[in-house]
Amino acid sequence: MAVKTELDPAVAARLKRTPDGLVAAIVQEHGTRDVLMLAWMDDEALHRTLTTGRATYWSRSRQEYWVKGATSGHHQHVRGVALDCDGDALLITVDQTGAACHTGEHTCFFDDLPLASNGEGEQS
Amino acid sequence: MAVKTELDPAVAARLKRTPDGLVAAIVQEHGTRDVLMLAWMDDEALHRTLTTGRATYWSRSRQEYWVKGATSGHHQHVRGVALDCDGDALLITVDQTGAACHTGEHTCFFDDLPLASNGEGEQS
Repeated sequence: MAVKTELDPAVAARLKRTPDGLVAAIVQEHGTRDVLMLAWMDDEALHRTLTTGRATYWSRSRQEYWVKGATSGHHQHVRGVALDCDGDALLITVDQTGAACHTGEHTCFFDDLPLASNGEGEQS
Repeated sequence: MAVKTELDPAVAARLKRTPDGLVAAIVQEHGTRDVLMLAWMDDEALHRTLTTGRATYWSRSRQEYWVKGATSGHHQHVRGVALDCDGDALLITVDQTGAACHTGEHTCFFDDLPLASNGEGEQS
């Protein structure tokens, strides 16, 4: 994350980063509106995403930039990027080629957790 | 986050938490499939969400649990909770009452960032 970035300073000024300089990036598929994955971006990853149209993340485990699809072929072509109200999360809308998840599933969120019957939640 | 939790140990074992014990929670509206917000959960917030059917988060700024809608009336009734492939993010599907965002907007992601023309991204 020592990379010097050309991210628009007006955008950079609105980001509220984690202590390691990142904002969360939620990835949603344009056509299906499925939420595909959660990744992380630093300023330079956001700059590359906005300017190349290819979703580019910061890998916390590998400590390097990661163009989605560069090895898998499962590219994400960026349709839109929105910043949330407090500047610490991005919503990336993409056209996804192939599976978004490294497991081969369409989305990373394929593991449903058991909900208790939520009668209490219906009262108001 | 010193609260003792009754979260199912089988679920707890699958969570990969930040150093402060949290997982990211992406909130999506059931009907519209709009992505509404990003919040954070510790084990107890997830336990409460799964068992009460009311979306409950951990506020990093206030350092307390936060039942969405408790003060605003803008409740989130939980339809489903899915864990992602690497255990560090949750997708919470909700029926949203009123606005999800504290600004009064339906979703927190109302601020579109400018995309460069992405001809480069169309090549493969």
